[in-house]
Amino acid sequence: MAIPVSPLAVALPSLPEIAGVRLGAAAAGIRYKGRTDLVMADFSPGTTAAGVFTRNKCPGAPVDWCRASLAGGKARALVVNAGNANVFTGRAGAEAARATAAAAALLVGCPAKQVFLGSTGVIGEVLPHERLTAALPALHADLRADGWEAAARGIMTTDTFPKGATRVASIGGAEVRISGIAKGSGMIAPDMATMLCFVFTDAKIPAPALQACLAPAVDASFNCTTVDSDTSTSDTVLLFATGQARHPRVPAEGGAILADFRAKLAEILHDLALQVVRDGEGAQKLVRIEVTGAVSKKSAKRVAMAIANSPLVKTAIAGEDANWGRIVMAVGKAGEPADRDLLSIAIGGTFMAREGSVVPGYDEAPVVAHMKGREIEILVDLGLGRGQAVAWTCDLTHGYIDINGSYRS
Amino acid sequence: MAIPVSPLAVALPSLPEIAGVRLGAAAAGIRYKGRTDLVMADFSPGTTAAGVFTRNKCPGAPVDWCRASLAGGKARALVVNAGNANVFTGRAGAEAARATAAAAALLVGCPAKQVFLGSTGVIGEVLPHERLTAALPALHADLRADGWEAAARGIMTTDTFPKGATRVASIGGAEVRISGIAKGSGMIAPDMATMLCFVFTDAKIPAPALQACLAPAVDASFNCTTVDSDTSTSDTVLLFATGQARHPRVPAEGGAILADFRAKLAEILHDLALQVVRDGEGAQKLVRIEVTGAVSKKSAKRVAMAIANSPLVKTAIAGEDANWGRIVMAVGKAGEPADRDLLSIAIGGTFMAREGSVVPGYDEAPVVAHMKGREIEILVDLGLGRGQAVAWTCDLTHGYIDINGSYRS
Repeated sequence: MAIPVSPLAVALPSLPEIAGVRLGAAAAGIRYKGRTDLVMADFSPGTTAAGVFTRNKCPGAPVDWCRASLAGGKARALVVNAGNANVFTGRAGAEAARATAAAAALLVGCPAKQVFLGSTGVIGEVLPHERLTAALPALHADLRADGWEAAARGIMTTDTFPKGATRVASIGGAEVRISGIAKGSGMIAPDMATMLCFVFTDAKIPAPALQACLAPAVDASFNCTTVDSDTSTSDTVLLFATGQARHPRVPAEGGAILADFRAKLAEILHDLALQVVRDGEGAQKLVRIEVTGAVSKKSAKRVAMAIANSPLVKTAIAGEDANWGRIVMAVGKAGEPADRDLLSIAIGGTFMAREGSVVPGYDEAPVVAHMKGREIEILVDLGLGRGQAVAWTCDLTHGYIDINGSYRS
Repeated sequence: MAIPVSPLAVALPSLPEIAGVRLGAAAAGIRYKGRTDLVMADFSPGTTAAGVFTRNKCPGAPVDWCRASLAGGKARALVVNAGNANVFTGRAGAEAARATAAAAALLVGCPAKQVFLGSTGVIGEVLPHERLTAALPALHADLRADGWEAAARGIMTTDTFPKGATRVASIGGAEVRISGIAKGSGMIAPDMATMLCFVFTDAKIPAPALQACLAPAVDASFNCTTVDSDTSTSDTVLLFATGQARHPRVPAEGGAILADFRAKLAEILHDLALQVVRDGEGAQKLVRIEVTGAVSKKSAKRVAMAIANSPLVKTAIAGEDANWGRIVMAVGKAGEPADRDLLSIAIGGTFMAREGSVVPGYDEAPVVAHMKGREIEILVDLGLGRGQAVAWTCDLTHGYIDINGSYRS
């Protein structure tokens, strides 16, 4: 089944070279035909790594592998395949991960535990790792400093467009680069909201400080988005710092010197997370849900995610119906403190309901026009406190059913 | 939009007269044209009542009204309308409920608080209660002991078939009758799983004992089903006992004398709950999910409901794809104790995965045949303990999008 490119797609930005990173893609024939499905990157010696992984209790073998590798804090290579998630594959799956890492380590000349892995695709089928290891030598020989688009495309599964983002950050007055690629369009929900995201920088940052930058940025980006409330067994965000840029020394605990780096990293992850939602399976509209007036930030986020995950809200948006009654329902089902008679709801900036009932004679025209657009804004004020949060989702359409009713066939 | 009758529909059984209950339906023109949308029942003096309501924090005005009325434990009438849920309607909604109850009370000759109310349909529009009160006198004059089908049809919204169930129970050797009607096909999830369900018996049961029978029966039926994980603001189950049957006295605390009554009531609610799932919006398949080997019954239920609510599982079933990998994902996302390497999964009785990986060379033919059927059985064994639970759901199809993308238009 050919899936049309999402109408919410954005163009892949030009991703500049990052000193110490070379990458590329090859067609290993894992599942797909006539396209690349194997991506490799290698990193200069001294590269540090940080990672955040799915909270799903049944993670894939590559997630197990990366969690263990992360303890060392060092990275020399990344190998990612699309088409097979290597999840729920028992001992054979762990062996496939080990063999893949060993093959890459041999090529790069490093311990296997400095190789990081990602796999995405079908669950429960044993990964044909011989196809990966057979394709790796030629792929490794061909890695390039400008292989970004190839890498961004090689990790796609049901994605309809490649995803990337880049920023320049300042560390102690010196410029460093940060670039990331991501894939994911279904099984997207906290925690986390993409299957795979890889970020690279030439900054020189000790592993503990790098991890301290990554975790909150993931929380504020991927963990505020949802496509279908399902949580992948493979969700992985990895951040690699090659240390090739020249800038004042960053202490192990990070601190103020990384303020701009943290801000730019957060921008990249937010950008990539929204690209994933824009490529939500079947998505026709990008939806921003802001909740204010909750008793706490945590409560606001739960309410926002309850709205973002409601199939009735999402189908109404697909139908361009400003059905705020379903938003009321979703607020109520979140289980968080809410008082029906204090609730106010605006769509596209027009308040349709205030303090527990419809606004008499509100102007429907701007709301109708807003609902026909590609980007929908919902504001819910609970009227209780100062907690606020934003969640992002997409609408639920026939396209979602088309894609997911026949994914394996 | 004409919605075809669910392929999972069952015929409305013949519901016998119940001494002390008269009912009927009228067309009040609340929202629909050319169909009944107002249902009334009246009960003989001495009728007791029990009720269980939505846990949604933004309940409708009729739910508020019923909760208050239930404190008295006595009932003389029930008024239900379809097409407008009288939810999120502020003071006007409470006034509409009060006026409707007052009009019915005047006709029946009872205090308003002995009138119970149910409303289902669009949220956020003020209920035109004058249409209800205008239609009530003629409707009341026309109530009949055999008005069951009229009542079952009059409460429907997006339902494609009327729902009813009946049993005979024994109390101290004497026979009593129990019959129920229900409506609901979307916004179905715990707690609870139908918008509206009304059960009637000629047994003579004190209100506290009646409530003690109802609550666990709802928990074991409606609260084990889900269509789309959304929780209605109007969910209501009411049980009325007219006391017209002759049987040994039931004490206020109920007890052993009600054992058979409880069993038959549980059967009726289970039957009605499954009818609601069978009429799930767009449903093509009824899905039974059994979870065994959990650390507790509560944990098993949470895992079963996580599977039942997963859009990816439900779309795979719609596509007749035995995608057990998505079941693994759903188990993992439930957040309950689970060990990937102990997990076993069977579909239609065939184990496809055992102890953490695919069963080598399992026979796919019976699984493929099973997936093409109307009733799908999924068994998940967690291999951890003795907790077990069953959840019921339906598949997620284009029909769901069709119905919910244009409900208000």
